[in-house]
Amino acid sequence: MATTDMATTVNKTAHPFDKTRLDATLNRRFFYAPAFEIYGGVAGLYDYGPPGSALQANIIDLWRKHFIIEEGMLELDTTIMTPSAVFETSGHVARFADWMVKDSKTGDVLRADHLVKNVLEARLAGDREARGLEAAPPSDDKKRKKKNAKAAAVKLDDGVVREYESILAQLDNYSGPEIGELCRKHDIRNPDTDNEVGEPQQFNLMFQSSIGPTGQHKGYLRPETAQGHFLNFNRLLEYNNGRVPFASAQIGRSFRNEISPRAGLLRVREFNMAEIEHYVDPEDKRHPRFKEVRDLSIVLLDRHIQESGSSETTTITVGEAVDKGIIANETLGYFLARIYLFLINIGIDPKRLRFRQHMANEMAHYATDCWDVEIHNSTGWTECVGCADRAAYDLSVHSNKTGQPLVVRQALKEPIITEKEVPEWNKKNLGKLFKKDSAVIQQVVESLDEAGLLKLKGELAQGSTIVKSEDGREFTLTPEVVTIERKTFKQSIRDFTPNVIEPSFGLGRILYTLLEHSFWSREQDVDRGVLSLPPLVAPTKVLIVPLSAREEFDPLVQEISAKLRRAGVFSRVDDSNTSIGKRYARNDELGTPFGLTIDFASVQNRTVTLRERDTTDQRIGSIDEVIATVTDLVFGNIDWAEACRRLPAYDGVQAVD
Amino acid sequence: MATTDMATTVNKTAHPFDKTRLDATLNRRFFYAPAFEIYGGVAGLYDYGPPGSALQANIIDLWRKHFIIEEGMLELDTTIMTPSAVFETSGHVARFADWMVKDSKTGDVLRADHLVKNVLEARLAGDREARGLEAAPPSDDKKRKKKNAKAAAVKLDDGVVREYESILAQLDNYSGPEIGELCRKHDIRNPDTDNEVGEPQQFNLMFQSSIGPTGQHKGYLRPETAQGHFLNFNRLLEYNNGRVPFASAQIGRSFRNEISPRAGLLRVREFNMAEIEHYVDPEDKRHPRFKEVRDLSIVLLDRHIQESGSSETTTITVGEAVDKGIIANETLGYFLARIYLFLINIGIDPKRLRFRQHMANEMAHYATDCWDVEIHNSTGWTECVGCADRAAYDLSVHSNKTGQPLVVRQALKEPIITEKEVPEWNKKNLGKLFKKDSAVIQQVVESLDEAGLLKLKGELAQGSTIVKSEDGREFTLTPEVVTIERKTFKQSIRDFTPNVIEPSFGLGRILYTLLEHSFWSREQDVDRGVLSLPPLVAPTKVLIVPLSAREEFDPLVQEISAKLRRAGVFSRVDDSNTSIGKRYARNDELGTPFGLTIDFASVQNRTVTLRERDTTDQRIGSIDEVIATVTDLVFGNIDWAEACRRLPAYDGVQAVD
Repeated sequence: MATTDMATTVNKTAHPFDKTRLDATLNRRFFYAPAFEIYGGVAGLYDYGPPGSALQANIIDLWRKHFIIEEGMLELDTTIMTPSAVFETSGHVARFADWMVKDSKTGDVLRADHLVKNVLEARLAGDREARGLEAAPPSDDKKRKKKNAKAAAVKLDDGVVREYESILAQLDNYSGPEIGELCRKHDIRNPDTDNEVGEPQQFNLMFQSSIGPTGQHKGYLRPETAQGHFLNFNRLLEYNNGRVPFASAQIGRSFRNEISPRAGLLRVREFNMAEIEHYVDPEDKRHPRFKEVRDLSIVLLDRHIQESGSSETTTITVGEAVDKGIIANETLGYFLARIYLFLINIGIDPKRLRFRQHMANEMAHYATDCWDVEIHNSTGWTECVGCADRAAYDLSVHSNKTGQPLVVRQALKEPIITEKEVPEWNKKNLGKLFKKDSAVIQQVVESLDEAGLLKLKGELAQGSTIVKSEDGREFTLTPEVVTIERKTFKQSIRDFTPNVIEPSFGLGRILYTLLEHSFWSREQDVDRGVLSLPPLVAPTKVLIVPLSAREEFDPLVQEISAKLRRAGVFSRVDDSNTSIGKRYARNDELGTPFGLTIDFASVQNRTVTLRERDTTDQRIGSIDEVIATVTDLVFGNIDWAEACRRLPAYDGVQAVD
Repeated sequence: MATTDMATTVNKTAHPFDKTRLDATLNRRFFYAPAFEIYGGVAGLYDYGPPGSALQANIIDLWRKHFIIEEGMLELDTTIMTPSAVFETSGHVARFADWMVKDSKTGDVLRADHLVKNVLEARLAGDREARGLEAAPPSDDKKRKKKNAKAAAVKLDDGVVREYESILAQLDNYSGPEIGELCRKHDIRNPDTDNEVGEPQQFNLMFQSSIGPTGQHKGYLRPETAQGHFLNFNRLLEYNNGRVPFASAQIGRSFRNEISPRAGLLRVREFNMAEIEHYVDPEDKRHPRFKEVRDLSIVLLDRHIQESGSSETTTITVGEAVDKGIIANETLGYFLARIYLFLINIGIDPKRLRFRQHMANEMAHYATDCWDVEIHNSTGWTECVGCADRAAYDLSVHSNKTGQPLVVRQALKEPIITEKEVPEWNKKNLGKLFKKDSAVIQQVVESLDEAGLLKLKGELAQGSTIVKSEDGREFTLTPEVVTIERKTFKQSIRDFTPNVIEPSFGLGRILYTLLEHSFWSREQDVDRGVLSLPPLVAPTKVLIVPLSAREEFDPLVQEISAKLRRAGVFSRVDDSNTSIGKRYARNDELGTPFGLTIDFASVQNRTVTLRERDTTDQRIGSIDEVIATVTDLVFGNIDWAEACRRLPAYDGVQAVD
């Protein structure tokens, strides 16, 4: 059945991608499922089952190796529960909010911008249908729109179409009251009930709680891990022997009380993040390893292109993008490249990945530059990673609020020597002559610039000078009261607040998008789904399949399990009471890349067959040969073509697929 | 300086354990620190810094290998935010609470049982002092008591001493009102202010929040991960092909809003747990791998000993304890043994570990048996792991509440054939004769047992019988209305609710206790602290120490780092501007087991020295020899004695320690 050439004949796109089928598969195989399902579930909360947990753990493990270990980052594990003061300082209490509207009759709550988007996009789709154009909406989740805001096929005036398109293009820029205005002007109603909606109100997205028994200490669940890094900056700096650049990293749970989450893992109320805060000298944002990534080509959608109304991307090397100033600095460019390499490594399709720069009006006022790593999936382009140069904002606000300096004290290699003119007072004479006006006079003189001091010096050399206070009074000064001297200053320490480059990963979004990119159906049968996850991240690496649960296979199953475990390869045994073909089909859906079949020949000859998931190709060899080969496959030392060179094709009569 | 025999001469107990010094070391090296410290901190919330995070990650990694991978458990990752209904069912809303009292003047809140304990123990200590006996209190944190409840050296009446001791021994059994009574009777006041305290009030320990924008959906942060397992039982069972036994496992964050946490990592408001729920047939709690642990000796403190007022432990094999019925069943015994092996493996001192069985009045009413794994540290014996046989409680309550069956349907190998007598009604005649009394008559007959039915059968064979309703009325039945027939029943499916064995690990407590068990000071100098963490869990395995930050060492530093990374050994470079001795001392405090020194000889001869942390012994060899040796050491393939056989002692003039 299988031949050496099978590997090249797999057609993964024979059937178009079907989100409904993928969702059904993920649910049936318990990658993830709505949390509290037997209690009716809660929107935006999901539990990961065994394959989802393992996939997530493998992605996190690779992330840790790719970033923390490779770059010697300082890992942190900080608390989720956070006292209110921290988020008051960071700005989250005031600004981490979305606008919501209430259905005027049912009281149902909708996110205001999503409502406008759904309704207007549905109307535009209805218009295109009425004009006999293709009904496909320009972007985003078709199914959701179908459900939420079905609109009749009604032709709109050309002017209205242009107005809707213009509103949609800049939807992120509307304030709450402006969205309210839009709803009234365009009669935007709750599509579920056709009722009007009320005035938009702000809803803070942080879950609130109370710390301790008195009820007086307000706390929030963190919406990101970042503040935990910043607050520990001094300890981290000390751990790093006082030197920058260095980075802290944290993988952990965060919470956002989304208004009305309906997009599966793409918008949830509780999620895992992986965040890096890289602290760098604001005057030197070069990166020592930039040369390693300089020639990597990436796809960019920069802010100027977007501001010109286009979404055309450019393919450019990271080096060129930094040289041309499209990416603000080397360190930011280095991280964009490293993020790219990580995502490709875990199996994201490089053709469906782009870097979108934030436009000026989209970016936080303090940020120097910000890029979203967007990955394309069935709902459109989805932000999965953000990478911002946040300048000195975070450390500065916490330092200002707490009075704790959060700075680097750098010993200068060459002390900076400066000379300047300074007033030298004879305090005794000053007091005697001017009494309570002494302070005013000192202040006036000391606020003079270099030129002013030089002028004074010249006049004093002539005998006396007159200075004027703010309220217009004049005082005559002589060298008995003050002289101006040229002095030398030596600065050997430089204090500075480091800037922060922050790559921030939404692990659930990456995981879900990876599942979409990996899912296809076999050419011959749409019901035979396959998840082509790379072995590195696949939940189970090897499935051990004895022909049946008969006891005679037990010793070999034990032996092979133990040998794989010793080799560090995670395997599972499936000896369930069903055909080998069905067991392999189940594991194709679970993304298990390799299968070992144990049959009567195995017992007799100590041979096993090795099956590859994508091709269903099968090879045969001695137990130890096959274990060595599959170990090399799992760790990426060899590819399937090389495995085929090592092991002959299996052409036994025992059909196992 | 160092010789081959050094390994045997290390005296780790030269200086008595000093908690203050350990705490200072852990804080200075940023193992962990109070969270939000620059904002003044919040009691019971701690952040883990780089070495603490790495130690925790290594413990979790070993846990995953020891339990999940070794036993093929099904891993889960469920949400922390939980709707109220779930904890209403589980009993947490009603009962997961502690009693608190308020200071009558300041309003400060204290945990009621802790207050009684602190005050009475302090009085007993004062009594012992007054009697000229040793002032050491019988158990628990001396420092805390000193701070909280210092009592004068006052001699008490012998009767009072006995009363206090009796109260302390059964403190867990007092209700809130009873504790209030105790406070009044014994004049127990807030030791910080000497004010009286009010009536004890119940305080639920779950953090409460609200899910979604309406404020109508109450949610709690989970105080344990267990409910997330139980709610997914049906999916897990299906994933396991419908068969028990199997286990689910989860490592994750949980929250408890402690009233007044003051015991460092031992009592915190946010913590990581690792929990296993092992589902087993209630009629067969044997374990297939029990034979592997049968001969392991463990130290037990069983319920009978405790109920007799003693705390004398028994050393016994797991097999004997199960055979004698001290441990309720094989599966429970298997997990106690596996927990023991895990704890010893990560470095817990086996001499400071015991299994304490819950007494009857301490155990949840539904539980069959429950053991705490207690580890001794400077605060006394501390529960670090619990292991309970929870019977069918959890699955039953959720099933009853939701109406979803949470059962195993087991196809019986041999169908169970039963014969029994059953009434066969002639419904037409019954209705005609008895009208609305028909139902009453049917109920009376069908509630009869086998003997009753046989008696009826005999009488009916004679022509007629009389039955009596509950209210005393009599009805005459004939074979025209009812006959009693012998029928055969065949049952081929058995439905049952599995029992749950639950090992539950508090990772922070284990981590802290491990740090205590690992900490000592060098013989010659109390200021030279060492953390003798086993290489398996040590945050950094190898420290690379170039003589200085001079560029000529860079190529070797790079080469050695890269080779160690390829071998899977986590290393760090310390090229800071301080002596090699100081750098090693810093890393002794961080628990780094091995050091590689790169000096001028390294550049010339490609040799490096290998230093062992506990002995400070140094060996020398070629770069590749040393890397191979240290890799074997880190993965536990060889011990230091073997390393000394492989590599000669370093006797260079360059003193590095």
